[in-house]
Amino acid sequence: MSINDPETYTLGSFFLALASIFIAGKAVSSIFVKFKQPEVLGELIAGVILGMLGLIPLYGELGYDFFHLLAEVGVAILLFEIGLETDLNDLIKVGLPSLIVAILGVIVPFFLGYYTIYLLADYNLISFQSEGALFLIALTVAATLTATSVGITARVLSELKKLNSTESKIILGAAVIDDVLGLIILAVVSGIVTTSGGSIDGNLSINVSSILLISLKAFGFLFLAIVVGNVFTKKLFIFVHSLKARGSLLLGALAYTFIFAYLAKLSGLAPIIGAFAAGLLLAKTNQKDLIEDRLKPVADVFIPIFFIMVGSAVDISSFNPFIKENIAVIILAVVLFIVAVIGKLISGLGAFQLNVNKLVIGIGMIPRGEVGLIFASMGLMTGVFTKSEYSAVTIMVMLTTFIAPPLLYKFYRD
Amino acid sequence: MSINDPETYTLGSFFLALASIFIAGKAVSSIFVKFKQPEVLGELIAGVILGMLGLIPLYGELGYDFFHLLAEVGVAILLFEIGLETDLNDLIKVGLPSLIVAILGVIVPFFLGYYTIYLLADYNLISFQSEGALFLIALTVAATLTATSVGITARVLSELKKLNSTESKIILGAAVIDDVLGLIILAVVSGIVTTSGGSIDGNLSINVSSILLISLKAFGFLFLAIVVGNVFTKKLFIFVHSLKARGSLLLGALAYTFIFAYLAKLSGLAPIIGAFAAGLLLAKTNQKDLIEDRLKPVADVFIPIFFIMVGSAVDISSFNPFIKENIAVIILAVVLFIVAVIGKLISGLGAFQLNVNKLVIGIGMIPRGEVGLIFASMGLMTGVFTKSEYSAVTIMVMLTTFIAPPLLYKFYRD
Repeated sequence: MSINDPETYTLGSFFLALASIFIAGKAVSSIFVKFKQPEVLGELIAGVILGMLGLIPLYGELGYDFFHLLAEVGVAILLFEIGLETDLNDLIKVGLPSLIVAILGVIVPFFLGYYTIYLLADYNLISFQSEGALFLIALTVAATLTATSVGITARVLSELKKLNSTESKIILGAAVIDDVLGLIILAVVSGIVTTSGGSIDGNLSINVSSILLISLKAFGFLFLAIVVGNVFTKKLFIFVHSLKARGSLLLGALAYTFIFAYLAKLSGLAPIIGAFAAGLLLAKTNQKDLIEDRLKPVADVFIPIFFIMVGSAVDISSFNPFIKENIAVIILAVVLFIVAVIGKLISGLGAFQLNVNKLVIGIGMIPRGEVGLIFASMGLMTGVFTKSEYSAVTIMVMLTTFIAPPLLYKFYRD
Repeated sequence: MSINDPETYTLGSFFLALASIFIAGKAVSSIFVKFKQPEVLGELIAGVILGMLGLIPLYGELGYDFFHLLAEVGVAILLFEIGLETDLNDLIKVGLPSLIVAILGVIVPFFLGYYTIYLLADYNLISFQSEGALFLIALTVAATLTATSVGITARVLSELKKLNSTESKIILGAAVIDDVLGLIILAVVSGIVTTSGGSIDGNLSINVSSILLISLKAFGFLFLAIVVGNVFTKKLFIFVHSLKARGSLLLGALAYTFIFAYLAKLSGLAPIIGAFAAGLLLAKTNQKDLIEDRLKPVADVFIPIFFIMVGSAVDISSFNPFIKENIAVIILAVVLFIVAVIGKLISGLGAFQLNVNKLVIGIGMIPRGEVGLIFASMGLMTGVFTKSEYSAVTIMVMLTTFIAPPLLYKFYRD
């Protein structure tokens, strides 16, 4: 009986998959905790193992949509929890360094990635049909390298009890700005790639007004959410707390989070940005401590599902160096990984006027996670990437996700 | 934008649907609590409202599978929580009255329902093609009337803080036995109905050995689960509690529950029976209080989803008495509802040798819930039921679900 076969994917298999996720996640992360390594790395590796064993239903199958959505709830709760622990005033204080770090963290990896692809093409490590096709490959790879995935870094900073440090605030602020910038790049690049249908003939008119519109919506959402939310949130939660139905405060806080996630999506942003804004707003209510306390067990259930799903997306067989076709893929992956790490480490220098650990900021920006994977899958679906290039980019994204936690543990422990 | 259209069912709509479920559930049940009515009734009505507004995605659509599975997790957690609060020794003490109540509660409604259909057919309130077809209708309706849905009663007993009373134990015990009996009836009736393809020509060979096999598996599962589980569960949870990863104890308990739910499904039983067994076993561990404490917020999130989904399955338009075609349906529904209530009230007399409130036991057995709906949808899919008969049976099931909580509140309050 295969769990990936919709015919046999019964309710029973569903419960078994859920149990496997919880057991594997806690078993592997307990070993990591024992050796003073980050728990989240244990969950990622548990995901890789479950993916290899076929215990996580594949994307598009009956079961996967469920776990995919559970993972989305998990990462939304994670960002909400982080927002709840963040002081908005402190975040505004580090606004300028965050902005510089974010911009550097987008521009440097983008251009490094772009020219790396042309360099590799000179050594015949990239196969391409035409100059136009090569341009599209370079553009998509470059875009993949830009967007920071804040989830993993935030979880590690939380494990290290460093969420209130200046470094953490710069990283979180930069990651939020990064997401907005990444979104604009996604809109532009996907516009170019999809209109050219994978090949290109010089016609590259980028619609400037649509780029402006997307940027405006994104910044507008965050500004409006925080300004408007400030007006009514405190009073709303005094009322919600007065309700006598079981779990009203917790469900009220979650509903508030999900509505902000919805509004963010409506504004063309990632839902997690809305969840983060909801957390920032609820951090100022009188019920903050109660909400935090009741959220904890719910977070314990949902958050590991996100990291296990991220891990399960890795296709281990692409790593096998004994298969000749994998060599070029492995070289491409390793080179892109080095570019990805250097690009974001340089962004840490953006916090130049402050007395902070710039290396830690750079490391915190390294993980690409799900945003990178969105670019990669767009590349595959539009025919810009071959299956090999797609695998290489995916492996690069995964490696950035795996490298950051132990580096943070190493360079940011007391 | 309709939430039922998979094309527009984006991640944003998903978050909105989740927020709607939480907000509507807590808003309506807060009103019910204010007027000292059961919370669960508020959640059912919230479900009806959300279903009418089209805010709950329909069965089979992209989104519904997700909420359907979340509801399954919810009812499993509910039964686990109930098991956790149940003392197994007390349950065994009421074993015999439970068995008698369960058997009466299956036999009486079955035969009452069976002859009611023939009676209604005499008054031309049931349309049928042949005697064989009428037999199949009577058989399926009778089967629908048998199986008690313990979820709603258990929730109300919990709200009334009566879970430790003898009446509650008899009801819970009888409901577990009922589920086993209901399963056997389902196997037999679906065997007859599906092999005859909706019409019947006298060939009614019921395979006795397969009935025996199903019964054996069902009882065997419960016996084995409790006997084998008793051997290792205490030691297992001393180990799980010693793990240092975040939320290990809670996720360990949930994984344990889901594995038992899986094993129950594998034995051909409803997953909730396994979840209940898991709760009974963990009730004897030293970590019981800790697990109960950490489970509460998670239960607050998942359990209302089950009741809201049950409510959302009601098709309000079938109730409209101004449409002529609905009259026969309404009469059928009302008659079946009366039969359903009387049948289970009589079952309460099964606890004859004990000094208990037999009326309360009868009321506790009234709700049919999801098991009844399984019979009804099987009837519709195999062509035994017309759409009208299906609606009547569904309405009957819903009414039993709605009537029990206020009756329990009325007759079982201190």
